Amino acid sequence: MKIPPTHPRYTSLMTREKLVRAWKAGVAVPEGLIAHGRGEAFDYLFGEETSAPALVAEKAAAAFLVRGKRPVISVNGNVAALAAREVVHLAKAIPAKIEVNLFHRSAARMNRIVRLLGTAGARDVLGPRPDARIPGLDSKRALAHRAGIHGADVVLVPLEDGDRAEALVRMGKVVISVDLNPLSRTTMMATVPIVDELTRALPTVEKFVKELRGDPKEVERISRTYDKAGNLKAVYSYLGWRLKGLMKTQQHRGR
Amino acid sequence: MKIPPTHPRYTSLMTREKLVRAWKAGVAVPEGLIAHGRGEAFDYLFGEETSAPALVAEKAAAAFLVRGKRPVISVNGNVAALAAREVVHLAKAIPAKIEVNLFHRSAARMNRIVRLLGTAGARDVLGPRPDARIPGLDSKRALAHRAGIHGADVVLVPLEDGDRAEALVRMGKVVISVDLNPLSRTTMMATVPIVDELTRALPTVEKFVKELRGDPKEVERISRTYDKAGNLKAVYSYLGWRLKGLMKTQQHRGR
Repeated sequence: MKIPPTHPRYTSLMTREKLVRAWKAGVAVPEGLIAHGRGEAFDYLFGEETSAPALVAEKAAAAFLVRGKRPVISVNGNVAALAAREVVHLAKAIPAKIEVNLFHRSAARMNRIVRLLGTAGARDVLGPRPDARIPGLDSKRALAHRAGIHGADVVLVPLEDGDRAEALVRMGKVVISVDLNPLSRTTMMATVPIVDELTRALPTVEKFVKELRGDPKEVERISRTYDKAGNLKAVYSYLGWRLKGLMKTQQHRGR
Repeated sequence: MKIPPTHPRYTSLMTREKLVRAWKAGVAVPEGLIAHGRGEAFDYLFGEETSAPALVAEKAAAAFLVRGKRPVISVNGNVAALAAREVVHLAKAIPAKIEVNLFHRSAARMNRIVRLLGTAGARDVLGPRPDARIPGLDSKRALAHRAGIHGADVVLVPLEDGDRAEALVRMGKVVISVDLNPLSRTTMMATVPIVDELTRALPTVEKFVKELRGDPKEVERISRTYDKAGNLKAVYSYLGWRLKGLMKTQQHRGR
């Protein structure tokens, strides 16, 4: 099926296509497709646009990443499928290491994802030879690199599950999440939760990283004044306002 | 991975497992998994319970199905995977025909789904040998049976896409949808939109069918007084109220 670029849902349909292709290539897993659907529903409610409060969180995330001594970006199947290039660009701008971290881990899948990131321009991707464990997670899910996530002080975990986000926070790390569900455990647990779509969020964080790199005073100010609870409250207000608007429109149409 | 029945998200996780298995068996398709994720997000917002307005729509649906001269239940991959038994029980209670109608149609998949419904107790399932077309849909998606969906006066379309729901409404049929997205085109288009989860909705409709079968006066009264716009308005109010509550709880936790 060919989707015309003029289709009102073009971006969303193309993203879906990309993920189905990644699943066929053994990069994404069925559970990842279901998770993507959940994200789609929330993005629909958000109007498929970055909200003002998400922008604030993205700037804060950039400040924490620039300030980090050992920043790492965690990549799973969906992230690799949807935003390999965006991850590589952001990692170079910070600079940060990249570690592949899979919920449904297999050596073959790990290698496919590392290769995919290599094609997107990444060097020295961690993941295949873990030498440490994240406490509180079961066997395969705990595997990490000492030189990567395990030893990091700031970790960006896009599309992460709640258990892992929580385990990383318990290790004392600054955890930055990207998750469209404003009520998920990942969003609740993260130090800096970004409630936005992945391919909009990563380039925005990158833009702020480039702005902030040369401005340590502003980095300090932002990381000191960032208010998670206040930011999430603003996200909730925005969502409530959007939902009210959507309902009014649809009710009108439904008549 | 074994999920303990005491897990707070047991039902949701088991349903997800069931769908992944159905995809491995060639019954569900990747696009169906993504669609399921969208439903999960909305069901989460609804508290994974049947709302009072959904109950009203389910009773109205039962009245229209009992009143129908040629009622048909349409089944796709996700419906077969998640609720084959529920479909068969409801079809027997009405009684209604069952027709398999696939968005991503192949002969092999069609046969697998017909077999699955047979195992659940269905007889004479339509779908494999279509002899008619639904106007306004492209090639494969238009295929239908004269003795089934094409000739039906009332069609129950659980988890249907918007184009097809609209095409059936244009044919003058009473279209009953089951869709967790209260803002979807399917919900907007249907004559009686049920905004509820499939395996909760179908047995509830069945219960109402059994109640109403012997009460033609009540059937007439309900089908005459059912108010779609009013019902959807109640669904929206309920969702707004739920969302407000969720946000209050999470904000508290997030602090």
